[in-house]
Amino acid sequence: MPHISLEEHLPGITGLLEYRLDTAYPIRDLTQILLRGPSTLSQAERELIATVVSAGNQCQFCTAAHTAAADILLGESHTSDMVKNDLSEAPVSEKMKALLEIAKCVQVSGKKVSPELIQRAKSLEASDLEIHDTVLIAALFCLYNKYVDGLASVTPTDPAFYQTLGNKIVNLGYLRSQPKPDKQTI
Amino acid sequence: MPHISLEEHLPGITGLLEYRLDTAYPIRDLTQILLRGPSTLSQAERELIATVVSAGNQCQFCTAAHTAAADILLGESHTSDMVKNDLSEAPVSEKMKALLEIAKCVQVSGKKVSPELIQRAKSLEASDLEIHDTVLIAALFCLYNKYVDGLASVTPTDPAFYQTLGNKIVNLGYLRSQPKPDKQTI
Repeated sequence: MPHISLEEHLPGITGLLEYRLDTAYPIRDLTQILLRGPSTLSQAERELIATVVSAGNQCQFCTAAHTAAADILLGESHTSDMVKNDLSEAPVSEKMKALLEIAKCVQVSGKKVSPELIQRAKSLEASDLEIHDTVLIAALFCLYNKYVDGLASVTPTDPAFYQTLGNKIVNLGYLRSQPKPDKQTI
Repeated sequence: MPHISLEEHLPGITGLLEYRLDTAYPIRDLTQILLRGPSTLSQAERELIATVVSAGNQCQFCTAAHTAAADILLGESHTSDMVKNDLSEAPVSEKMKALLEIAKCVQVSGKKVSPELIQRAKSLEASDLEIHDTVLIAALFCLYNKYVDGLASVTPTDPAFYQTLGNKIVNLGYLRSQPKPDKQTI
């Protein structure tokens, strides 16, 4: 049961973003820019950063939602499984492995990001902007994970829920859908 | 030395917010709403939440900056010292102690916020909105702390720097100052 009164039909982050719309707006906006805006990292790669951080924080709602989004974007679920469970063997580029290692450190503490890790990413041609965005996406998903679990929002157990949510994230993005007309985003 | 190229005269979060202005805008906006917008929590109380979370994450830049802001708002430094070092004896209301305990849990993990802690805050007349805002401010400062330390931005050692920054935060808020005219905020 959530720690505060939230709309019952809106689990996880969805009820929180409806609870206070003025704070939800910049959170949604920041996410849309970082995960869906122009970038040399693919949308799937950015969803994998969100996934690995949420898994590190053991946030079941966010992990399931962003795993679903990554899987839909990639057309398979093997990559997200490997990124979460055995990153060194995951079928992603060496640069992406280095960036995901940085994200995993940020999840624990910003101080864990060592000059050696950064040097490895740069030697694999990660740009400053890619490193910046990796750190900021990781930090943003720590915000989400702590927001969702800190208020004990409801975590659905039906996998179909996350498939639907993943499709919504992939097709509509992170901005708030208008009630009318259907499917238009603001 | 920062992990990416930042303007040398802008330490801590300041250089990061100038590095990517499009992501900085919603971060600044969210902070302004939560820490300076209408609330039944005073601005000083909200700065104390930012302070206790930053201290928990051992982020020296954010801890010093928000300690300075809280101290300026309160007109003394005893309260922020006690909140950081001996919360149970700090000269804040019992309700505020309960909210600061919740913030300290969020800093570690959202899952640490127990129904008992929430019940204690509610029995001391903390509203749902105050609990929501406490959790979200704590989560936001985890983002800041991880962003600042994850990119190894410069941490000034001169206390005068933080006094100046604290005054700027208190008097101008969190939105971006325009280069011209002086001191106008957008």
